[in-house]
Amino acid sequence: MATTGRFSYDELFSKDMPASPPSPFPTAKYDFAVAYPDPDTIPLEGLVDSLRTALDREGRDLAYYPDAAGLLSLRQLVAKKLARDRGMTVDPDHVVMTSGSSEAIGMLIQALTDPGDTVLTEEYVYLGTLRQLRRYGVNVVGVACDDGGIVPEALEETLADLRGRDSVVKFLYTIPTFQNPLGWTMSLERRKAVLEITGDHGVPVFEDDCYVDLRFEGEDVASFHSMDGAGRVIYVGSFSKILAPGMRMGYMVAPPEVLHRALSGRPGGGPSQFSALAIEEYLKHNMYSHIAEENEALRVKRDAMLASLGESFGSSARWNAPEGGLYVWLRLPEGADLAAVQAQAMAEGVAYYNGSQFSPEGKGVNCARLCFGHPSAETVYDGIAELARVLDCHGALGG
Amino acid sequence: MATTGRFSYDELFSKDMPASPPSPFPTAKYDFAVAYPDPDTIPLEGLVDSLRTALDREGRDLAYYPDAAGLLSLRQLVAKKLARDRGMTVDPDHVVMTSGSSEAIGMLIQALTDPGDTVLTEEYVYLGTLRQLRRYGVNVVGVACDDGGIVPEALEETLADLRGRDSVVKFLYTIPTFQNPLGWTMSLERRKAVLEITGDHGVPVFEDDCYVDLRFEGEDVASFHSMDGAGRVIYVGSFSKILAPGMRMGYMVAPPEVLHRALSGRPGGGPSQFSALAIEEYLKHNMYSHIAEENEALRVKRDAMLASLGESFGSSARWNAPEGGLYVWLRLPEGADLAAVQAQAMAEGVAYYNGSQFSPEGKGVNCARLCFGHPSAETVYDGIAELARVLDCHGALGG
Repeated sequence: MATTGRFSYDELFSKDMPASPPSPFPTAKYDFAVAYPDPDTIPLEGLVDSLRTALDREGRDLAYYPDAAGLLSLRQLVAKKLARDRGMTVDPDHVVMTSGSSEAIGMLIQALTDPGDTVLTEEYVYLGTLRQLRRYGVNVVGVACDDGGIVPEALEETLADLRGRDSVVKFLYTIPTFQNPLGWTMSLERRKAVLEITGDHGVPVFEDDCYVDLRFEGEDVASFHSMDGAGRVIYVGSFSKILAPGMRMGYMVAPPEVLHRALSGRPGGGPSQFSALAIEEYLKHNMYSHIAEENEALRVKRDAMLASLGESFGSSARWNAPEGGLYVWLRLPEGADLAAVQAQAMAEGVAYYNGSQFSPEGKGVNCARLCFGHPSAETVYDGIAELARVLDCHGALGG
Repeated sequence: MATTGRFSYDELFSKDMPASPPSPFPTAKYDFAVAYPDPDTIPLEGLVDSLRTALDREGRDLAYYPDAAGLLSLRQLVAKKLARDRGMTVDPDHVVMTSGSSEAIGMLIQALTDPGDTVLTEEYVYLGTLRQLRRYGVNVVGVACDDGGIVPEALEETLADLRGRDSVVKFLYTIPTFQNPLGWTMSLERRKAVLEITGDHGVPVFEDDCYVDLRFEGEDVASFHSMDGAGRVIYVGSFSKILAPGMRMGYMVAPPEVLHRALSGRPGGGPSQFSALAIEEYLKHNMYSHIAEENEALRVKRDAMLASLGESFGSSARWNAPEGGLYVWLRLPEGADLAAVQAQAMAEGVAYYNGSQFSPEGKGVNCARLCFGHPSAETVYDGIAELARVLDCHGALGG
């Protein structure tokens, strides 16, 4: 560790934990790496107007330290939304607002795990969750998936194997809808099977539903939480995707004893009331019209990506056609190495994350997550052609 | 631990840590317990107008996940403010924005301490810091103070004693200006002595300067950080007092290796950009005029408290006359027990915290912290009279 001036912090540190903060996301002309939503549909005017209305009504309350669980009226709105959209019966007192869903995930990992515990995930998993699990010394085990979601037989086998080795499995973390990074939505049958198998093994389910509002077509699939009669599903959601990540507003729904523990690990209190007041007032009146507008913009971008993939990659690769969300998962033939050319592609203006970055075991260098949320539809279209050109030029197409 | 439905989280929890979230502050007709600033001077209109201006300019950036360290332009403003107001030379890259100063304090405690370590504090210490130190299993040792601040001889003696017992002293935490809960400002001579003594023992200083802007009269005293040539002062500040706690915006200044470690423990990313943009745009133009207006309001309240204390307590108690901040420290004669009647006083409409709540050793039941920030001047005046009446009625005046 470095020293500063004449004083060394070496002597003071005895903690053994990774010291790196998350690195900033890359920027590139064609940026399919960033997991950002559409910037042009952020309702800036609406949020400012709503904030003014809310502050006229209750602005003096900013002088108080916020409720540790977050603004009550916003928690009530979340409970109503979850009842309407996800079939969930939730007491607003069992909702805690967080600084994005990433804070919720971190608080829950801290509350529920000890170093050496095991957590199951899908075979490719959201980077932020993977990073936080590792930071807390958790053993992450990916479970095989296909286009319908987690494969029940693989889950059963993994759990039986872990039980045989006396591992402590704290929960199964899943993004069942528009999975990050795989893009699929887990079918109802699969959800029922996963709930039953984990139930048999006494393992809670941690349902991260942060993309569920971004559905362009098809029907919603029931949430794990709505099918759970035993209080063993923990649920996390976010306003980062339907409003903006910069608002830093997500939430968790969990049994009181879990929330209690999670809250005791949060030093900064509830998230900004300034953000919370604007969000509550805006969404109370505009939630579904805004979501519809945003999804229309995202649908066009997805279509641009799928069309360009067809034209540029043809039969040399496979990819899925998600009904919503932000991601397409590109699979090149075995032997292709998208990790090896990632830095070069970035230097040539095309950014992506290769599959191994999402894999607990580091597999999947022939795959890439392509996010279509942030660039314009035209940029998405051109960028995929450029990606194919760059990969071909560097012999990275495999096959 | 309770069970939920048919499922028990008992089996899953093995962590041994306090599970209680911070309890909500009490509310009472005469509330001297809450540490809130004046609600009537919060610049609501100004903040909304500033937000609109900032979003017109850079609102699409809300689609990005914020820099882990927080909005760069706000960190630059903090660096400029600290140079002008506190004589500090600070690189904006060494500033991290946090969800209030309490998040900064929590992140730093988590980054710098291990269970069993020792941290020194003033003999009475901010409740939030005390709670967090205890949560992380830190041994908190209070150092004797008088009206000039920490007593150098007591500090020297405490450090020598701890060294003799092979304790690992991670830092000295101090609120040198308008101390919470004692109200005094540490003199320049004392600061120099404290810096020298801690330097001799290789112990960093953690300077919590969150009240420094609330000066009604007298001259600023140089910050520890500005007198440190060895990179061993960590500095924390806040916008909770000069704007509003509900904005959830504070900051820390520390050597890069410390920030690095602190950031790696924060799961939710930087605080709300929505708050940050409004704050930066507003303070860029209005910081000092707004602070002057707020301090004028607070000065009137402090004067009302001091006048009422003189009329209602006379020679039966002692108290200080702070040059700023939010707190007066009331001392009744030995034998008085303000802890015993606290709940009854609350029931009769007068709220305060007794001294023992701020003491690592639980001493000081004959003392109380009285915060004059939130009630109106008239309420402050009437409330002190009511406090004297309630204490007298229940035989709690001692002496």
